[in-house]
Amino acid sequence: MILIINGPNLNLTGKREPEIYGSETFESYLTRLRASMPEVSIEYFQSNSEGALIDRVQAAGADAGCEGIVINPGGYSHYSIALADALRAVDTPAIEVHISNIHAREGYRATTVTGAACRGVIAGLGLDGYRLAVEALKERWKRG
Amino acid sequence: MILIINGPNLNLTGKREPEIYGSETFESYLTRLRASMPEVSIEYFQSNSEGALIDRVQAAGADAGCEGIVINPGGYSHYSIALADALRAVDTPAIEVHISNIHAREGYRATTVTGAACRGVIAGLGLDGYRLAVEALKERWKRG
Amino acid sequence: MILIINGPNLNLTGKREPEIYGSETFESYLTRLRASMPEVSIEYFQSNSEGALIDRVQAAGADAGCEGIVINPGGYSHYSIALADALRAVDTPAIEVHISNIHAREGYRATTVTGAACRGVIAGLGLDGYRLAVEALKERWKRG
Amino acid sequence: MILIINGPNLNLTGKREPEIYGSETFESYLTRLRASMPEVSIEYFQSNSEGALIDRVQAAGADAGCEGIVINPGGYSHYSIALADALRAVDTPAIEVHISNIHAREGYRATTVTGAACRGVIAGLGLDGYRLAVEALKERWKRG
Amino acid sequence: MILIINGPNLNLTGKREPEIYGSETFESYLTRLRASMPEVSIEYFQSNSEGALIDRVQAAGADAGCEGIVINPGGYSHYSIALADALRAVDTPAIEVHISNIHAREGYRATTVTGAACRGVIAGLGLDGYRLAVEALKERWKRG
Amino acid sequence: MILIINGPNLNLTGKREPEIYGSETFESYLTRLRASMPEVSIEYFQSNSEGALIDRVQAAGADAGCEGIVINPGGYSHYSIALADALRAVDTPAIEVHISNIHAREGYRATTVTGAACRGVIAGLGLDGYRLAVEALKERWKRG
Amino acid sequence: MILIINGPNLNLTGKREPEIYGSETFESYLTRLRASMPEVSIEYFQSNSEGALIDRVQAAGADAGCEGIVINPGGYSHYSIALADALRAVDTPAIEVHISNIHAREGYRATTVTGAACRGVIAGLGLDGYRLAVEALKERWKRG
Amino acid sequence: MILIINGPNLNLTGKREPEIYGSETFESYLTRLRASMPEVSIEYFQSNSEGALIDRVQAAGADAGCEGIVINPGGYSHYSIALADALRAVDTPAIEVHISNIHAREGYRATTVTGAACRGVIAGLGLDGYRLAVEALKERWKRG
Amino acid sequence: MILIINGPNLNLTGKREPEIYGSETFESYLTRLRASMPEVSIEYFQSNSEGALIDRVQAAGADAGCEGIVINPGGYSHYSIALADALRAVDTPAIEVHISNIHAREGYRATTVTGAACRGVIAGLGLDGYRLAVEALKERWKRG
Amino acid sequence: MILIINGPNLNLTGKREPEIYGSETFESYLTRLRASMPEVSIEYFQSNSEGALIDRVQAAGADAGCEGIVINPGGYSHYSIALADALRAVDTPAIEVHISNIHAREGYRATTVTGAACRGVIAGLGLDGYRLAVEALKERWKRG
Amino acid sequence: MILIINGPNLNLTGKREPEIYGSETFESYLTRLRASMPEVSIEYFQSNSEGALIDRVQAAGADAGCEGIVINPGGYSHYSIALADALRAVDTPAIEVHISNIHAREGYRATTVTGAACRGVIAGLGLDGYRLAVEALKERWKRG
Amino acid sequence: MILIINGPNLNLTGKREPEIYGSETFESYLTRLRASMPEVSIEYFQSNSEGALIDRVQAAGADAGCEGIVINPGGYSHYSIALADALRAVDTPAIEVHISNIHAREGYRATTVTGAACRGVIAGLGLDGYRLAVEALKERWKRG
Repeated sequence: MILIINGPNLNLTGKREPEIYGSETFESYLTRLRASMPEVSIEYFQSNSEGALIDRVQAAGADAGCEGIVINPGGYSHYSIALADALRAVDTPAIEVHISNIHAREGYRATTVTGAACRGVIAGLGLDGYRLAVEALKERWKRG
Repeated sequence: MILIINGPNLNLTGKREPEIYGSETFESYLTRLRASMPEVSIEYFQSNSEGALIDRVQAAGADAGCEGIVINPGGYSHYSIALADALRAVDTPAIEVHISNIHAREGYRATTVTGAACRGVIAGLGLDGYRLAVEALKERWKRG
Repeated sequence: MILIINGPNLNLTGKREPEIYGSETFESYLTRLRASMPEVSIEYFQSNSEGALIDRVQAAGADAGCEGIVINPGGYSHYSIALADALRAVDTPAIEVHISNIHAREGYRATTVTGAACRGVIAGLGLDGYRLAVEALKERWKRG
Repeated sequence: MILIINGPNLNLTGKREPEIYGSETFESYLTRLRASMPEVSIEYFQSNSEGALIDRVQAAGADAGCEGIVINPGGYSHYSIALADALRAVDTPAIEVHISNIHAREGYRATTVTGAACRGVIAGLGLDGYRLAVEALKERWKRG
Repeated sequence: MILIINGPNLNLTGKREPEIYGSETFESYLTRLRASMPEVSIEYFQSNSEGALIDRVQAAGADAGCEGIVINPGGYSHYSIALADALRAVDTPAIEVHISNIHAREGYRATTVTGAACRGVIAGLGLDGYRLAVEALKERWKRG
Repeated sequence: MILIINGPNLNLTGKREPEIYGSETFESYLTRLRASMPEVSIEYFQSNSEGALIDRVQAAGADAGCEGIVINPGGYSHYSIALADALRAVDTPAIEVHISNIHAREGYRATTVTGAACRGVIAGLGLDGYRLAVEALKERWKRG
Repeated sequence: MILIINGPNLNLTGKREPEIYGSETFESYLTRLRASMPEVSIEYFQSNSEGALIDRVQAAGADAGCEGIVINPGGYSHYSIALADALRAVDTPAIEVHISNIHAREGYRATTVTGAACRGVIAGLGLDGYRLAVEALKERWKRG
Repeated sequence: MILIINGPNLNLTGKREPEIYGSETFESYLTRLRASMPEVSIEYFQSNSEGALIDRVQAAGADAGCEGIVINPGGYSHYSIALADALRAVDTPAIEVHISNIHAREGYRATTVTGAACRGVIAGLGLDGYRLAVEALKERWKRG
Repeated sequence: MILIINGPNLNLTGKREPEIYGSETFESYLTRLRASMPEVSIEYFQSNSEGALIDRVQAAGADAGCEGIVINPGGYSHYSIALADALRAVDTPAIEVHISNIHAREGYRATTVTGAACRGVIAGLGLDGYRLAVEALKERWKRG
Repeated sequence: MILIINGPNLNLTGKREPEIYGSETFESYLTRLRASMPEVSIEYFQSNSEGALIDRVQAAGADAGCEGIVINPGGYSHYSIALADALRAVDTPAIEVHISNIHAREGYRATTVTGAACRGVIAGLGLDGYRLAVEALKERWKRG
Repeated sequence: MILIINGPNLNLTGKREPEIYGSETFESYLTRLRASMPEVSIEYFQSNSEGALIDRVQAAGADAGCEGIVINPGGYSHYSIALADALRAVDTPAIEVHISNIHAREGYRATTVTGAACRGVIAGLGLDGYRLAVEALKERWKRG
Repeated sequence: MILIINGPNLNLTGKREPEIYGSETFESYLTRLRASMPEVSIEYFQSNSEGALIDRVQAAGADAGCEGIVINPGGYSHYSIALADALRAVDTPAIEVHISNIHAREGYRATTVTGAACRGVIAGLGLDGYRLAVEALKERWKRG
């Protein structure tokens, strides 16, 4: 099972600043993603709360069935040392995704403290970044 | 309806560091404020949790009856990119209020990342700042 | 009596960059403001000169009839330690007003050295910020 | 009564990065600590949520029976102005503890904004730091 | 056609610091990649010269047959404004790839000025990042 | 008509630090310049006062006969946000001139906040920079 | 003749923040100073205007009878590159005086750009600093 | 002979981001420039390679027939200490030209390390800046 | 044996700034400390000299009988890389103590370069911090 | 009695970099100074050692006969928090003297951490600065 | 064989700014160096191109006969992460040489990113630094 | 005579952190060095005290027989402006040596304020750096 975790305001994707984040809702995208990858079980969690995100990462770390985490911590990416510590505390491999290109926006968005605690970061490729992250995790299993 | 949102530790107003924040409780002030503006419906929400504040801002954005937000994010003002993102994600006009003059205190209080996501910021005018923010929102309606 | 002081380039309000500062001239606004608050005597001073602004603040401090200062130091807000020193040197309460939201513009506009020498700062609420500042000063008198 | 508050990821102590945080769980340590200090009543609270930590600090401030707080805010230490404000808002003396030596790790861990709001900080002495903090609080009572 | 451009030292991949960059050569990987995506024509260019990389980006921009660029600018990522200007000067969509997680290494590697001129950035997923970038470009075509 | 505005201490040109600013007075240069360009009407204004410079820029903006401004704000270039605001507030095209190469002197001289509000900046070419600026303005008219 | 120049707000000395600047007016001090040094002719100039201060420095530079300048630029000390340029432009030796110890106050007061253009700086010795500056200038004449 | 050197991406002038750089190609401009100045022999060199630009500057330095260099180092301007060293190493006078106003764009473009090694800098005057630079060099010859 | 080392000005404890450092002399405290821990042999060394402190740390490192160092380097804590190097050069475990809370004072006191070379740091608990440090060292022996 | 303390390298005054520090030895100057002020008893101490300087300041603080300290901490001025702490720890008034104008030299010399712990600072007036400092201390006595 | 690599502008040594770099050409020096060390085979490579320097370092890394590299990257030393990556990518030991003392020149020259990728750095000893670097490499062989 | 001066902790060389500083003691190395250069008289001085190092440098400057100084100031290199001033105050040529490569360690070690006051710096070549420094000094004599 792969767990996708979305942080604050990503529940508004499709409605919020569509020129930056696109106009498809995440729920619609998720349906399409699951349909395109029937062999992968994908769980989904969203919260605006830093503490709830940390709880969920810890739970995933304790769940032998969770083979990987795809996380978009939203605004928390840029300052949540606590969430980064949680990602470091678990063994489950995690990949961070950003819908927009964080390197091409305001200066404070170019630094990701949570991304430093993940295996890698995919930014700027829209919702498609989530699919690529799942594929990257699958590739790792295949290689063992 | 106008929604007033108070962030962390503002539930202690009147008891906490009165030389900075004054000695009237917020509840007492709110009663006076509502009495002085009977024509305005004022809702009130307080939480110490960043996530709950984001939830409430999002709910206000989805509530056609909410004509404006007056928000004092307390300590979160200075680092919560996530809350600022929420304020940017909704169309409801918001005004940030600070009881004390954030420009005249510790250096880290002079920057407000959430204030940058609001229409304006009122700081240092004590509890009266909330009334002024409500008036400013009313003035906008009048002008259309 | 309340003294409104406008700093550099505010004499061009209504003509200058209207997408930022609006299209009403300050004179027109002042007429409306005085009409809406007949019980308050409002004096007005504008200068592009830092020294003249300091002179006027000092004169207000020496004038027992001046009960409060509403000041928009324009570009001087961000570097005039001399004007801030003048505001600190007088006992007359002062409130700083900015038409635009200085927290949401260029980085160098987010710092106000003169605002740190005032009781409070109102930013981003357009010309209406001047009315709110006068009201805030009146509220102080009422409370004694 | 002394209240020990642990912040994010400290519920994983003993399992998480043992080369940094050691291999004893906090529950095991707490049992030992209580046994070694039968004369002190020790309450314990842990949460990954910044808001919940602030709530708990406020509750302790309102609880006449709580004579001191020993707090390890984990990752929040380095940026939570909101939690620091809560610690400043209550009269209960608080001491901050860090299991590892925050001065000898990544640069961003050397600054503690919450520690600046406590009476003191103990860092780098492992779980034993909690015992020392309780002893320091007891010493204060003894001296009156 | 998709053009993969590798910058300085990436011709040593497989031999150079294998604990960071892995032990497969890029040529070997490229053979596998082409085999796994027979429907995509992939061209490859490597140079250690900043000027030659700029020339190749410009040529790709003038080549109607080139549908996308996957670029790993190596060390140039962190300071080559000239290469970033070249990427901005062409219409061909580009995605930047880094084999290692640039956010988790030396501080000076966390900033990518060339990445700011691309559609997005994939970092830390090993050589597999190149495949994901090609897939992301294909997804864009499909969507039109 | 072209207006040349010189800021503080430029009235001492020819006498002041001649190894930096040369030994010809500005008056002598101006006579030569007018003689060499009889077809252009050149007005000249110098003041050591920031406010007077702002006044003059505003007056030029209100003067339909003024086709361009050549301005050397001297030391004000490096901190006068107020003067920069004035240059932004008028439609008259302005070009900033520096006699010496501000990029090759003290660090604080390399930043020009007023230059950012002009069409362009010419630095380091001695008094001849004024002539080039006038020519650049003329070239713009010719092109319409 | 020695010229004493006082910058902004120093006309309020004795009335303004007496815990910092003392309670004697400058006029009273000046009378005492002249009485104690009958052999020295002392002229005095005060202005709140940066431009007027520059004008006065330039005039002193052109006045063969002026043997030295004692200047307290007040708040301008910390940012007026224009005034510093004027001091550098004249040959008359100048000494900067600050009544309070600028090194022991807010960080932005510890830097004096005008002081860097004088022979020396005397700070923190109260009004007596002016006397010492005059003595230092006299000592220079004596030595030739 | 005057040598014009253009750095990276300037061969795309006219095609690249025309809202910034205009829509005339450099070749077209060069033809016009030579026609307007038949008395001056103008050579032209363009390269995207930092090394090639350094080579060309060195060759110009060794060429007695080369009376001046007009150089637009493009993106290299902001960090190429090596190119700046080359400009310092030769005696041929050089003037740096930028088509756009580097002071009014991204912060990292406001610093020019190569400009510090030239006689002067002309920025923001479009392609006309090249003509002005040639004129400035001619003026120097005339004066000897 | 445990060695307590006090750095500069700590010989004045009890007399110096008692609102910060308390009013008990260190000698008086030391007598109490030894009485309360008869089972521990405590040696004491104080010097104002950085070199002497380094000498003493080195000697302790060469002394098999010294089981631990409790060091308060006073003002040297914030810049003495040399003393930090000495602490790193010896195997004897060391704990740094500060009487006041260095995190709650001037910014330059929040960084401790010597503390980074110790096992841990205790700050803000008054003279009691020394006792706690000795206890922490004892706890380590007990555990082996 | 007045104590003059000179820090490192000031024993070389007159021989060391005379273009900065002058060519008179300190001993010669001291003889002249004592002769010119027979009514003042002046003691003198010089050391290159930071610890010895702290020792001497402490001794002066404990000596009822020492009415004032004139100190030139040389290079230590810019980083010795320990020496600054000593100056703060004693009640004896101290004035810092620098022979050269520290504001007009390398950037790191413009900050004086020890000067912030003195009553005032005299810089740039050569050896004469010592006389002025003694006079300033005398003036204080006279005033009581 | 030892390979000496010189970066940009070092081909001008002897002609370029001789007060900094001396007046002997590198060719002349190389002849003397080879004569003084007949037992060592010394190859020499110079290029102004960053890419060519990286190519040469890579080739040396692949050349079993190359026992050491002496490299002076000139201006690239201070920012070429790409060249530093190349030096890290090869096993051949390298020593960086600078003719002038980079620590005593402009601030931006004091940092060497390529030097961090070498075994050591020799700076400020003129051309003789190359000989010393070769000797240091020989010493390593001797030791095995 | 050549004087070798070693600063703090270098008396522990061979015992201290051997993975950084090697395992040969300095005394053993010195014996070998003297044996290998019988024609050079080498004196040796080590101290952990900043003041003693300054004293020794000054003494060397006054000793006509001392032809050069080889100095390793250890940790003082990074902050001792006082020691740097001493090196500048004497005419004896000095070369700074570091056993490890200061450019490849912690950021604060890459800056050497004392090195800026020497002729040159040799870093990272182990104890052999001392021999190379002596050779560099000899080479200077030979050349005159």
